[in-house]
Amino acid sequence: MKCPIDGSKLNIKERYGVEIDYCSRCLGVWLDKSELQKLILHSERVRLFGHLDEADHGKPEHKKRGGKRIFLADVFNFL
Amino acid sequence: MKCPIDGSKLNIKERYGVEIDYCSRCLGVWLDKSELQKLILHSERVRLFGHLDEADHGKPEHKKRGGKRIFLADVFNFL
Repeated sequence: MKCPIDGSKLNIKERYGVEIDYCSRCLGVWLDKSELQKLILHSERVRLFGHLDEADHGKPEHKKRGGKRIFLADVFNFL
Repeated sequence: MKCPIDGSKLNIKERYGVEIDYCSRCLGVWLDKSELQKLILHSERVRLFGHLDEADHGKPEHKKRGGKRIFLADVFNFL
């Protein structure tokens, strides 16, 4: 998979169960739809519980706090 | 700019001052280094203050709460 900016081969890094494609030249990142969803869900979990357990990675669940959506979910709600 | 997955032309959406390139076919997203940094900083601001003012967009600043880095900053700290 190639960087849409400079055509370099994208590298892959897994962080908290989320696979991030990134360009080591321009440091841009690509997130597939499913990886973005995981990132948003993990972010919600951290907001709710203050941390992310290793065991949580495989079982994302959607929660809200006081009806407010978290920032990341809000940012990407056009997708 | 083209989608690294399916070659579609990426669209651009601005959210909270962050320019997000996305593929309307596969719904993946691309974030340039500078846009990712903005996103992380905005996320920190939301965590600290509970909201993001329109006026904040142009002046990112790096803050920590109790020495703990926020989730997003942690996820992308390999870059």
